[in-house]
Amino acid sequence: MTEAEVVIEIPFHDVDVMQVAWHGHYVKYMEVARCALLDKIDYNYLRMEASGYAWPVIDMRIRYAKPLRFQQRVRVKAKLVEWENRLKVNYLIEDEKTGERLTKAHTIQVAVDIASGEMLYASPDIIYQKLGITP
Amino acid sequence: MTEAEVVIEIPFHDVDVMQVAWHGHYVKYMEVARCALLDKIDYNYLRMEASGYAWPVIDMRIRYAKPLRFQQRVRVKAKLVEWENRLKVNYLIEDEKTGERLTKAHTIQVAVDIASGEMLYASPDIIYQKLGITP
Amino acid sequence: MTEAEVVIEIPFHDVDVMQVAWHGHYVKYMEVARCALLDKIDYNYLRMEASGYAWPVIDMRIRYAKPLRFQQRVRVKAKLVEWENRLKVNYLIEDEKTGERLTKAHTIQVAVDIASGEMLYASPDIIYQKLGITP
Amino acid sequence: MTEAEVVIEIPFHDVDVMQVAWHGHYVKYMEVARCALLDKIDYNYLRMEASGYAWPVIDMRIRYAKPLRFQQRVRVKAKLVEWENRLKVNYLIEDEKTGERLTKAHTIQVAVDIASGEMLYASPDIIYQKLGITP
Repeated sequence: MTEAEVVIEIPFHDVDVMQVAWHGHYVKYMEVARCALLDKIDYNYLRMEASGYAWPVIDMRIRYAKPLRFQQRVRVKAKLVEWENRLKVNYLIEDEKTGERLTKAHTIQVAVDIASGEMLYASPDIIYQKLGITP
Repeated sequence: MTEAEVVIEIPFHDVDVMQVAWHGHYVKYMEVARCALLDKIDYNYLRMEASGYAWPVIDMRIRYAKPLRFQQRVRVKAKLVEWENRLKVNYLIEDEKTGERLTKAHTIQVAVDIASGEMLYASPDIIYQKLGITP
Repeated sequence: MTEAEVVIEIPFHDVDVMQVAWHGHYVKYMEVARCALLDKIDYNYLRMEASGYAWPVIDMRIRYAKPLRFQQRVRVKAKLVEWENRLKVNYLIEDEKTGERLTKAHTIQVAVDIASGEMLYASPDIIYQKLGITP
Repeated sequence: MTEAEVVIEIPFHDVDVMQVAWHGHYVKYMEVARCALLDKIDYNYLRMEASGYAWPVIDMRIRYAKPLRFQQRVRVKAKLVEWENRLKVNYLIEDEKTGERLTKAHTIQVAVDIASGEMLYASPDIIYQKLGITP
């Protein structure tokens, strides 16, 4: 099973006038966790590009349950849950200390052939190789 | 009907190595349009706070159809489609010139009583006043 | 004389807990004005790259006189003041309505030959062509 | 002597089309190091506010020697070098592995009395207490 987690401390510049992390900054926290996940399977952005595919995010959903505060340390968990036709990653953001669940989210990425610009309707073989499974 | 639109030119600092606007920056474009919408009904963030309510985003979904490029001018349309129990805003991002549809999204906000910190399960009267309708 | 100006409305997501624009966001405002300036001489980032040169910022200074607030409209003026060996741009940020001076800044960029990665100690001819002057 | 350092890995969303960290993002790296420094003397933003003073940045300079790249790990060192009339912090950004110096910078902050909005021309006593020195 392919998952990764990172710990992030909410920085001052992410906090808005309501004294909580502005909701748009969560996308960065999720990306840091997803990058850790992709590193684990040796398929980060640089490797993607070298493999001839870009994997743009085509769908993202974030459900905010509790606010994040300045200097709060949160654990961001990313888990790859689909890969056949697209990459779907689920995210959980939890308080590092208490484990309280703060946010749930997911992103969906599809392969695009960089040379032709065409979107692929099934994931290319490279993703199976990286995951160590047979297509 | 309550809607607003803004035109945004994609700035250099929003563009990533794939030469397109990084997907997290769309949240800013949507917010600028939502702020224009809230200004229209005289209920922007400052008025919200003065009314005793915060309206945090609790759910956001973005579907990315086509990439946005450096210096592309896009029209971001925001439309209030629910207000009884929560504020739901739908967004469309279109190319300014061609009108091509590039992104669809929505956000959902709920009222929180600032004094008590309690979330409200129905929108407070103030939102009906601002919309000029009877609850 | 080569100068440009843009008007920017300070967005919600740039405002911090002190209710003013976070000081790091000014770099974006300056860039938008500098891009307008570079467009004027037909030498924006895309043209730079096509000409074989990158122009990284190597020095930046910002002096903050007065804070910028949510929804404040500010005029950002960018003026090219050196080009022989490097591009130096001066910036002024003023309140749109009152003209009050809020911030002074400058950036310095040097040409880098993209092919060799070498920094140039004198500006390449292309900048003189774009400025319509004889080297 | 009052200094602190943090290690930051350059995230994907900070990297621009030239494949290097966009120059404006350095302000965030510096702030993370400055916050670590302020935590060390028990005078972070929350304590500042509780003490009745805000400390806005009024001057910032960054000299960029070498670019930062995606996933590069850098050490950001912050050192308090003045405190009598204003807080001056010097920064160095170095490659974590090689120690190569990549960026030099400084910020200057002054105390503002939150109640009156007045800028102070000498640092208030609280800063001496926090530094454990006699004014």
